[in-house]
Amino acid sequence: MHTPTRKTAEPTVRRLSLYLRYLEAFEQAGRGTISSGELAQSGGTTSAQVRKDLSFFGSFGKRGLGYSTHELTVHIREILGLDRQWRLVIIGAGKIGSAVAGHRGFRDRGFEIVGIFDADPHRVGHALGGVTVSDVRHLETEVKRLRADMAVLAMPAESAPEVATRLAKAGVHAILDFSTAQLEVPSDVTVRSVNLALELEVLSFALVNR
Amino acid sequence: MHTPTRKTAEPTVRRLSLYLRYLEAFEQAGRGTISSGELAQSGGTTSAQVRKDLSFFGSFGKRGLGYSTHELTVHIREILGLDRQWRLVIIGAGKIGSAVAGHRGFRDRGFEIVGIFDADPHRVGHALGGVTVSDVRHLETEVKRLRADMAVLAMPAESAPEVATRLAKAGVHAILDFSTAQLEVPSDVTVRSVNLALELEVLSFALVNR
Repeated sequence: MHTPTRKTAEPTVRRLSLYLRYLEAFEQAGRGTISSGELAQSGGTTSAQVRKDLSFFGSFGKRGLGYSTHELTVHIREILGLDRQWRLVIIGAGKIGSAVAGHRGFRDRGFEIVGIFDADPHRVGHALGGVTVSDVRHLETEVKRLRADMAVLAMPAESAPEVATRLAKAGVHAILDFSTAQLEVPSDVTVRSVNLALELEVLSFALVNR
Repeated sequence: MHTPTRKTAEPTVRRLSLYLRYLEAFEQAGRGTISSGELAQSGGTTSAQVRKDLSFFGSFGKRGLGYSTHELTVHIREILGLDRQWRLVIIGAGKIGSAVAGHRGFRDRGFEIVGIFDADPHRVGHALGGVTVSDVRHLETEVKRLRADMAVLAMPAESAPEVATRLAKAGVHAILDFSTAQLEVPSDVTVRSVNLALELEVLSFALVNR
């Protein structure tokens, strides 16, 4: 299997992820095969792009017959690493942390929230989505004990860089960051940032420039 | 002023937004000027890129002297449309809607939440972040009355496309979408999508391919 560089991977991964949603709906509807044209629609792209995306990870489908819905679903889940369970911790039990903890559908897709941490003693000990909030002081020990793979940073920007460094040292190699901090992590840690204010600014720019 | 196409604009807008954060911190710290090198650091880019980004919107700064922190802050706020107030409505008063409603710092950046809507009668009438939740049935009339510019969709994917269409008809031209729906809106409506499951899948892919 090809390992694309991180830079080229992202848009492809996004499309694979969209194809997968469509495939799952198709499978549920009892459709045995799907064409590259139908998949293209789901990803907002072209048939040629679909064939390119999929051939990149090996050859699926037969010319003229389309793809087997089930086979392709299984393959894409494998490519995306969704054929296994991922163990997630959330740092920050405030509004965003609670929304993430209560997000339906994460577990269905193989993401299990195994720990939640906060620095505020008023939040420690309370349960969020069935998980008791722990003191962030014990982060390293707990993250190792829980065998966490991923972390969601839902905390103020000021303390995010320090926590990211501690998570990386404790063996977490994937971080979804809601703080607006600039994180400095080792190169083997992947960070995805969700910055809500920035998204609104992109919209603001679009409104004044339309 | 140049109006870049929507396609080329996005990465530039993201960088401008990052420069702005850095500039504001610099201004608060009392620094009168800033170099393109310092700005480059904030946007994770090069001095040449900074000069290109800024020259695209007119000429700022003097060679060798750097940029005036205050002037550049004002200019970038203008470019991004942050020199005015934007009126935001949130559709969906569940976990994500509440997190957005409670997000500190939106108002400071000129985004004011003027309305929240939900279809659930148990939520209608309750207050979220100081705003009373209205029945989504009255969306069009209320959106017009409130003179809303932007909407945040924080609702299940099933009902999102219909609501997006109704918002577009009521004159909302910018939508931040947390549902995983495929929205079909007129070409003069800009949609930004935040898909948390998809972000986790990008991380999952990175973990299995590192």
